[in-house]
Amino acid sequence: MDVRGDPFGRHRVIEPKGKLPQPAWKLDNDTSKLYDNEILIDVIRLNIDAASFAQIKHEVGADEQKVAEKIMQIVEQRGKMHNPITGSGGMLIGRVKAIGKDLNVDVKVGDKIATLVSLSLTPLNLKKIKKVYLDRDQVDVEAEAILFETGVFARLPEDMPESVALAVLDVAGAPIQTARLVSPSDLVLVIGAGGKSGVLCSYVAKKYSGPTGRVVALVHSERSIEQLKKLGFVDDIFVSDAQDAVSSYEKFIEVTNGRLADVVINVVNVPDTEMTSILCARERGKIYFFSMATSFTKAALGAEGIGKDVDMIIGNGYAKHHAEFALQIVRENEKLYQHFLERYGEK
Amino acid sequence: MDVRGDPFGRHRVIEPKGKLPQPAWKLDNDTSKLYDNEILIDVIRLNIDAASFAQIKHEVGADEQKVAEKIMQIVEQRGKMHNPITGSGGMLIGRVKAIGKDLNVDVKVGDKIATLVSLSLTPLNLKKIKKVYLDRDQVDVEAEAILFETGVFARLPEDMPESVALAVLDVAGAPIQTARLVSPSDLVLVIGAGGKSGVLCSYVAKKYSGPTGRVVALVHSERSIEQLKKLGFVDDIFVSDAQDAVSSYEKFIEVTNGRLADVVINVVNVPDTEMTSILCARERGKIYFFSMATSFTKAALGAEGIGKDVDMIIGNGYAKHHAEFALQIVRENEKLYQHFLERYGEK
Ligand SMILES: NC(=O)c1ccc[n+]([C@@H]2O[C@H](COP(=O)([O-])OP(=O)(O)OC[C@H]3O[C@@H](n4cnc5c(N)ncnc54)[C@H](OP(=O)(O)O)[C@@H]3O)[C@@H](O)[C@H]2O)c1
Ligand SMILES: NC(=O)c1ccc[n+]([C@@H]2O[C@H](COP(=O)([O-])OP(=O)(O)OC[C@H]3O[C@@H](n4cnc5c(N)ncnc54)[C@H](OP(=O)(O)O)[C@@H]3O)[C@@H](O)[C@H]2O)c1
Repeated sequence: MDVRGDPFGRHRVIEPKGKLPQPAWKLDNDTSKLYDNEILIDVIRLNIDAASFAQIKHEVGADEQKVAEKIMQIVEQRGKMHNPITGSGGMLIGRVKAIGKDLNVDVKVGDKIATLVSLSLTPLNLKKIKKVYLDRDQVDVEAEAILFETGVFARLPEDMPESVALAVLDVAGAPIQTARLVSPSDLVLVIGAGGKSGVLCSYVAKKYSGPTGRVVALVHSERSIEQLKKLGFVDDIFVSDAQDAVSSYEKFIEVTNGRLADVVINVVNVPDTEMTSILCARERGKIYFFSMATSFTKAALGAEGIGKDVDMIIGNGYAKHHAEFALQIVRENEKLYQHFLERYGEK
Repeated sequence: MDVRGDPFGRHRVIEPKGKLPQPAWKLDNDTSKLYDNEILIDVIRLNIDAASFAQIKHEVGADEQKVAEKIMQIVEQRGKMHNPITGSGGMLIGRVKAIGKDLNVDVKVGDKIATLVSLSLTPLNLKKIKKVYLDRDQVDVEAEAILFETGVFARLPEDMPESVALAVLDVAGAPIQTARLVSPSDLVLVIGAGGKSGVLCSYVAKKYSGPTGRVVALVHSERSIEQLKKLGFVDDIFVSDAQDAVSSYEKFIEVTNGRLADVVINVVNVPDTEMTSILCARERGKIYFFSMATSFTKAALGAEGIGKDVDMIIGNGYAKHHAEFALQIVRENEKLYQHFLERYGEK
């Protein structure tokens, strides 16, 4: 085609013009044209962001057909799988179909890759939804997608099933950020510890807080208790609804005998859990909000409202080496690997 | 009345029941009853949060009467001045009218205080709006408000006009957090440097980055340039629209000769400025989002979208000693004090 696009992808923004593709409302998903600094991907599977998938299931019901229709409808409207209510996306795996001639990248046509940039900025030409996996937020599709010059991706590892790699890579930001935040002897609370990022963060929190540290898991269902007990990473587990801040807080301090958390990791997939995180953190403690259902104002004003001096961090989906770190974490612990295999592997 | 309320104020939540007052939709603002652990305030003036005030002016026009009507309408609906669109509040000054008998606080009836918890969680019985100050987000009212047991407040200082103290205290979280984040020799970018928190943060950034540091101001209007030049705290100033990320970034690196910021302080009052902050920060730099118009997902996914490994912090409105710190900053620098006097003092 002999045209170079903007490195950030602004050339694909239809509305509003001039914006970057993530905040934009609508992208040009015409994959019959490829700019010289783009990669064209033959998409195999989408991993919809957990907060987005939960919102869709909540809206249309846990029905494969209806979820598929909703996804088609969003992509039709926006040219990308960018949930207008949660604002979040997800990621995808596929095969490299073509590489713009100006790019010098470490993949070749035919290679299987996972995109590590959000679907919320990825032009997606979605032709058909072949299968919806209601229990793991994944969707098999017939589609093509575009990766911009500044887009990050990873070659899929060959030593684990695709669906497992996809599940791990989707939340790759969380474990490495947890490792950065947790120090030896810390008391760490993981909210939503039974989920995909929850188990990864629990494992990492235990590893980095060390033998003198303590990791407490807040889970929502009895199933999660069983799984976490089997995994054996956390010191204490309790069941609570994180949307009920005061009772979650009361249960937490009962477990810890009044001690508050040095670090709180929030990895739930539902809104209105900011106050639980804030109440359970100690003065000058740190809260890491990975949940895409986090509200900025609820966090900022919620902490102010009760005069709690905590550092609150926005969960950046990217960190240097995050993909290798997350995959390696799963490889290094056999129980963790088995858990992911059972939970997300193809049957 | 002989009834003790919940320390966090849940007893005043009408909808949804059981929630904390900040995230709640509607509060009970009946000030004819006072719980034994509440303070009743005779309100003199509201300081509406800048993002909220800008949104209201944008919606109804810069018209005193219309802004007043909109504020009345919001308080009528919610029992608190909690802007449903921006999610933010503001703060107030008033005189202590009654103190619940269970409270042991360092004020007495008649004392003038400023609340340091957001209006978004403060039950407000708003009888009348007497005057709207369109140019400084303040409103004179006839009203009563309730402060909960965990609510934070400050006695008004006697050495400066009320309107100045109110302006400084409204953004008291920003200067002390800037001081925590900035280290000697840092390159600091302040986005929205001409505003209330902008000038305070610029001063603090210069003080803490020291003689080998560099503070760059992004401002929106020529007026701000003049004021900042007169103040003399910043090393460089440039005009840009922070909603236009790529051109703001290009202007910034032209000023710094390609160097990116170690710390970015975002203190604008409009949405869609996340990407400017992210583009201008260096790898592993820090971004402090004080703006209440910040979107959590736009920040998290925006950074991921361009593979930028930055630490993004949610601007907590509270920090230990934040009020004393902010007032002292204004006292210690004569130019800063004069600026606040001219800009926010009564004429
Ligand atoms: N920042 C980023 O870049 C980024 C990237 C990817 C994902 N994310 C976000 O990270 C979060 C977690 O993702 P994930 O894939 O790990 O999700 P997930 O596997 O669906 O796990 C979510 C967990 O939240 C728990 N939960 C749901 N409602 C709850 C409640 N009311 N109280 C307590 N726990 C509750 C669930 O518990 P039960 O199973 O026991 O019901 C589940 O274990 C999502 O919000 C997602 O949007 C962020
Ligand atoms: N986190 C908290 O607890 C908390 C507490 C209080 C306030 N806040 C927030 O802090 C922010 C600043 O408050 P403030 O009282 O300092 O506000 P302010 O005095 O109104 O200042 C806002 C500044 O933003 C600038 N601005 C507006 N549009 C812009 C654009 N497109 N590009 C670049 N700059 C632009 C304005 O520049 P010009 O004047 O040159 O047009 C102005 O100087 C607000 O968003 C407010 O909601 C947060």
